[in-house]
Amino acid sequence: MNYCSNCGSEQINFDIPHGDNRARYICHQCNAIHYQNPKMVVGCLPVFEDKILICRRAIEPCYGLWNLPAGYLENNETVEEGAARETWEEARANVKIIKLHCIYNLPHINQVYLHFLAHLKNDRIACGSESLEVKLFDVYDIPWKQLAFSSSKFALEKYIEFKESYQGVHMGTYQAD
Amino acid sequence: MNYCSNCGSEQINFDIPHGDNRARYICHQCNAIHYQNPKMVVGCLPVFEDKILICRRAIEPCYGLWNLPAGYLENNETVEEGAARETWEEARANVKIIKLHCIYNLPHINQVYLHFLAHLKNDRIACGSESLEVKLFDVYDIPWKQLAFSSSKFALEKYIEFKESYQGVHMGTYQAD
Repeated sequence: MNYCSNCGSEQINFDIPHGDNRARYICHQCNAIHYQNPKMVVGCLPVFEDKILICRRAIEPCYGLWNLPAGYLENNETVEEGAARETWEEARANVKIIKLHCIYNLPHINQVYLHFLAHLKNDRIACGSESLEVKLFDVYDIPWKQLAFSSSKFALEKYIEFKESYQGVHMGTYQAD
Repeated sequence: MNYCSNCGSEQINFDIPHGDNRARYICHQCNAIHYQNPKMVVGCLPVFEDKILICRRAIEPCYGLWNLPAGYLENNETVEEGAARETWEEARANVKIIKLHCIYNLPHINQVYLHFLAHLKNDRIACGSESLEVKLFDVYDIPWKQLAFSSSKFALEKYIEFKESYQGVHMGTYQAD
């Protein structure tokens, strides 16, 4: 943040506001405090019969690698709506949300993933603009070495370990190698 | 947003960027796109023996009304850490997080609440700076008519209905009266 988005001033400091306990961007012209908070990434683990839908990314980062359909939650939508929307946008797949499958923290980049277990309503899938390829994988064919992000790896591992018998939510946090 | 936080320009439009499908704040001077996304509010439903810890708010909105301890997730923390931190800040209570209890969408104000079931390690509680009063309530004494927010009402109702037997996560969305 170089300029105050409220008054346009350059007098921005990263300092602890009165009564707070952590540093924020503060404008010394208009006194606005600019809070920054983590973002939610919502997506699905979409299942059709015994297969899982995974998408190959047509965008950076990790162009060409495989990922469960997911993206930033948008304003004015619920987490369930966002997860279904992302699955439609990336794989043109219609899903029924079954339950929250896992939450995965990425505190070093200020993201929290929420993946929902979802059932595909049929096997009609097609690439959206952010996908090079979309495919229903048998569990034994999952491209583990070509997965884009650890959040998808976590969601897939927990699904394979517990299938749909586990009622709770799997909680995970990114650990640097 | 009145000024671009990147270059300070006033040439900000709320328009759909190329390749996107919803309106964003775009700077026509430096081409920065300023995305805005929902925030996570994390908190606890803290239980000690048969009682639930609830706090009376010393801040607006809803000054003087009762609420489960909760607040915005901060950068560089996990959802579990944030929920425990808020419970310490508001009620000086040490908790052990047991499981994710509920998720409650407030799409009209771009918030998503995550409440964790937590067990108090002891009954030592005290007001933090944002609380007028903190109290362990018997289930039959919960001040339903003086609750600050529907997110706490939802979390408490689901806890009383299912106690700790339910392994899943209760999902809810704010409905206007």
